[in-house]
Amino acid sequence: MSEFQPTERTKVHRVAQRATYDRDTIYSILDEALVAHVGFVDEDQPYVLPMVFVRVGDSIYLHGSTRARMLAGMVAGHPVCATVTQLDGLILARSAFHHSVNYRSVAIIGSGRAVEDEARALVALEALTEKIAPGRWPTIRAPSPKEMKATLVVELPIDEVSAKVRTGPPLDDAEDLALDIWAGEIPIQTSYLSAIADPTLRDGIEMPDHVAALVK
Amino acid sequence: MSEFQPTERTKVHRVAQRATYDRDTIYSILDEALVAHVGFVDEDQPYVLPMVFVRVGDSIYLHGSTRARMLAGMVAGHPVCATVTQLDGLILARSAFHHSVNYRSVAIIGSGRAVEDEARALVALEALTEKIAPGRWPTIRAPSPKEMKATLVVELPIDEVSAKVRTGPPLDDAEDLALDIWAGEIPIQTSYLSAIADPTLRDGIEMPDHVAALVK
Repeated sequence: MSEFQPTERTKVHRVAQRATYDRDTIYSILDEALVAHVGFVDEDQPYVLPMVFVRVGDSIYLHGSTRARMLAGMVAGHPVCATVTQLDGLILARSAFHHSVNYRSVAIIGSGRAVEDEARALVALEALTEKIAPGRWPTIRAPSPKEMKATLVVELPIDEVSAKVRTGPPLDDAEDLALDIWAGEIPIQTSYLSAIADPTLRDGIEMPDHVAALVK
Repeated sequence: MSEFQPTERTKVHRVAQRATYDRDTIYSILDEALVAHVGFVDEDQPYVLPMVFVRVGDSIYLHGSTRARMLAGMVAGHPVCATVTQLDGLILARSAFHHSVNYRSVAIIGSGRAVEDEARALVALEALTEKIAPGRWPTIRAPSPKEMKATLVVELPIDEVSAKVRTGPPLDDAEDLALDIWAGEIPIQTSYLSAIADPTLRDGIEMPDHVAALVK
């Protein structure tokens, strides 16, 4: 089991028994979630933007227009925080106080850097497409040189990182267990519904297996 | 239709046709999502934490331990950004470049303030519980004076705010429409699975209707 080293900035203080620095746990959360909430600072004001992302090796990759202000700040070395959260359940306790949610969350802090090498940028874009729909990349039109020029791929190394995980049932106070109140967990599930073909889809194009496989 | 006024800080520049400042749209996104990603700054480093939240009137409310560093900073007037995102679908285009997601996202910036009045704090906690499980609040044990003392409720007025919404099919380039590639949308749905009773639940306590109603 490989562990990240908590730093002064990533050590979890609140409800510290839910903290983990375990690499496998952290990577599995990053690989399941599609969206990161990326925080950056501009004139002392924090901003948080949702962005699709992918992990490749020991970094996550974001991308967007070369004209996007936030990405420009990232590659200029401004500090960021990328937080990824999967909501797993509602915790309905006997007391209002112990109501909660089950979740898995990862926060990565650090500075991004531009992926200047076009081959490496393509690897990240391919990995992102394959994360969204495994098997799709070989079937689609690859980015043109002009599209690559308009796209900024940014790498954020997974170095200073922590995770917080809550699982299991409600944790009511002992003196509340005798109360005549139902308590338990409601698991939350995210699923895909039937695909909706593009209205402009040419006649005679069948839905490929990699799309059908997404909708179980 | 009521609109928020965009400011220098909330005016959306990237893909501006997806921006909206419409109050009803913004409130419906806030009322559907359970988790906000809250960004704050500490020594120039942004941090982003997931927090459950509820909207009441023209504010959202967060809460946590009185010892939580981030909430303490909020009530000290430090600027924050609370971003809420609902992921609605995968957009599978013919070109790699036009792959995307459908989503609805709201970003509120400003400063929080402590809800000192206990009756008002209770209203926020009740609203949060009722958002998670409508009908539950009257059935549970209310917060004790000691629990209220340990809980900090923070109000963030919805004042400087913007939303971004992407809906609809892929938007491929005209010259790609003739390609022999399937394109479309995969809608994403979040649902609740069957409730899991607390292992310590006393015998003879039936699941109440408000819990059964969550799982359709």
